[in-house]
Amino acid sequence: MSKVHNFSAGPCILPQEVLQQASEAVINFNNLDLSLIEISHRSKDFIEVMETAQSLVKELLGVPEGYEVLFLQGGASLGFLKVPYNFMKAGGSAAYVDTGTWASNAMKEAQKVGDVIEVASSADKNYSYIPSNYPIPGEADYLHITTNNTIYGTQLKKFPISRIPVIADMSSDIFSQRINVSNFDMIYAGAQKNMGPAGTTVYIVKKSALGKTGRTIPTMLDLETHIKKESMFNTPPVFAIYVSMLTLQWLKKNGGVEWIEKVNQDKADLLYNEIDNNPLFVGVANPADRSNMNATFILTNEELKDEFDKMWQSANISGIKGHRSVGGYRASMYNALPLESVQVLVDVMKEFGQKFG
Amino acid sequence: MSKVHNFSAGPCILPQEVLQQASEAVINFNNLDLSLIEISHRSKDFIEVMETAQSLVKELLGVPEGYEVLFLQGGASLGFLKVPYNFMKAGGSAAYVDTGTWASNAMKEAQKVGDVIEVASSADKNYSYIPSNYPIPGEADYLHITTNNTIYGTQLKKFPISRIPVIADMSSDIFSQRINVSNFDMIYAGAQKNMGPAGTTVYIVKKSALGKTGRTIPTMLDLETHIKKESMFNTPPVFAIYVSMLTLQWLKKNGGVEWIEKVNQDKADLLYNEIDNNPLFVGVANPADRSNMNATFILTNEELKDEFDKMWQSANISGIKGHRSVGGYRASMYNALPLESVQVLVDVMKEFGQKFG
Repeated sequence: MSKVHNFSAGPCILPQEVLQQASEAVINFNNLDLSLIEISHRSKDFIEVMETAQSLVKELLGVPEGYEVLFLQGGASLGFLKVPYNFMKAGGSAAYVDTGTWASNAMKEAQKVGDVIEVASSADKNYSYIPSNYPIPGEADYLHITTNNTIYGTQLKKFPISRIPVIADMSSDIFSQRINVSNFDMIYAGAQKNMGPAGTTVYIVKKSALGKTGRTIPTMLDLETHIKKESMFNTPPVFAIYVSMLTLQWLKKNGGVEWIEKVNQDKADLLYNEIDNNPLFVGVANPADRSNMNATFILTNEELKDEFDKMWQSANISGIKGHRSVGGYRASMYNALPLESVQVLVDVMKEFGQKFG
Repeated sequence: MSKVHNFSAGPCILPQEVLQQASEAVINFNNLDLSLIEISHRSKDFIEVMETAQSLVKELLGVPEGYEVLFLQGGASLGFLKVPYNFMKAGGSAAYVDTGTWASNAMKEAQKVGDVIEVASSADKNYSYIPSNYPIPGEADYLHITTNNTIYGTQLKKFPISRIPVIADMSSDIFSQRINVSNFDMIYAGAQKNMGPAGTTVYIVKKSALGKTGRTIPTMLDLETHIKKESMFNTPPVFAIYVSMLTLQWLKKNGGVEWIEKVNQDKADLLYNEIDNNPLFVGVANPADRSNMNATFILTNEELKDEFDKMWQSANISGIKGHRSVGGYRASMYNALPLESVQVLVDVMKEFGQKFG
């Protein structure tokens, strides 16, 4: 366990044993007397890494037949552009749910490609809730959702029931809970929360949904390019994919997504319980929509800020400063954050409550 | 010095001390008790990495005022798309020199965006030479060149004199020799040869050349997006940028580009001299266009292949198998490959010549 309790919102904490293995591979990978980062991506040693990472994604999420797993570059932000290019028909339209900055960015990018219908938004209350009971236009080519909103601390607890294909940006909660992949035409997610370091983005895509837009798609934005070349159309981000593989191996070894879902629930319950019961704190997000990944909260008495900051800092807690657009605090509890770290934070909050409450 | 003589064409050898520092940072970065890959990219520690890497690029290449240095994702292949979007006017055209697979891919991508004039090609002789004395159309918005062709072992020894702006893909020879950046409106290069690991691409771009196409550019493809956000519009590939910074520090400490240019010339002279004087070998590329980065050569007697392969393998040489589209051998001699490794290969070639010549 790290000496620091790392609540960073991403890039975020990774398992200590993964960091150890990654560190060794940078010097000597697979006993080749060569570094992982100085061998050909077409060597059998790296091809094995790529294949193992892809098959772990399939196994951990129960990805059904007919889906492909890709590891690409560019972050979810480049995904925002790939989505309309690959799924919005020329002359067609797409439906977007606006639940925060990144959801909104995804929508804006699609607007550059074609017609976009904003079906719901929580911008009216600074994205502190998840909209529900909105109509989904049957003529749209897909519905785009963002399952977890890191900045605001909200998370979709139920996915929308939709007659049109659903595409989800799961950057900040993939691998945190069980999902039914067959409900989605595509899931995509930047690695740097629950999967690995920054620098690669996973795409889980239903093959039969591709090739139907009638658009000319630039080579690197065309998911079929990368499917044909098995994520090696050009040099892949070797290190980020390798560390993702290690992190997924760690997850599998410990009991997979079913196990981590329970751990994540325990961590969230522990922290939200303290936020709700400690009169010095109040949660930011609508309670029904609270994220198990990112808990946002503020002080009821802003004058005590320096006191609280001193206390958590001296407990070796790191990364709980809130995002500038929300303020207060944000404790991110991604997969690799142990329950013990949440307990340390809760203990600090309790002590703070006793001292100043 | 590595125990293996690593002639890999890319990802390729990096300095041993860089690998050592990178390995340590994966465990404990800047004595934070946190890994480099689990801290926020907006932390002061990482912002310092980004700024140091950018200023090293400027210092090592003598980048003049008015240019910006960016570290982005997607490889040069995504650069092939950014080039026409950012530099080809709506209704305009661009001139391309086709010197190999990657040059040709760059051209094909531009053809998806607008009118392309192929001003010269060496495809007629399997790209074994660099075309010269071709007319450059004065009405084109830019001339695109690829300065080194990894697969074929050719390199531009003189840059074209052009009245229109020149854009260069320098993926496989950037930082290997002195260049005059002011002759280019943009230089771009994947990191994974002379700069660092796979996963980031450097762009050196003249600011005043941007914003003039009249095109709607997708956010992530718009270089002005990344200039405004100092390469942090979205989460950057932290590890790849950090290792690039270390590699550039190594280069600076040893004497910079002026120093490495001489070392690279010595390595190339040593190997090409053996290729030319050993009757069992013949060079593939036109001698005047030979690359100092990648030497391609074949056996004069293909029946001796197994014998030669056994000999270099037992000398702990790695990565000299030729690309499938050229055959034979390719010895890549990027910046971090020591002269001693080239000497080992030359000694093997000499011994092979004595035994079977």
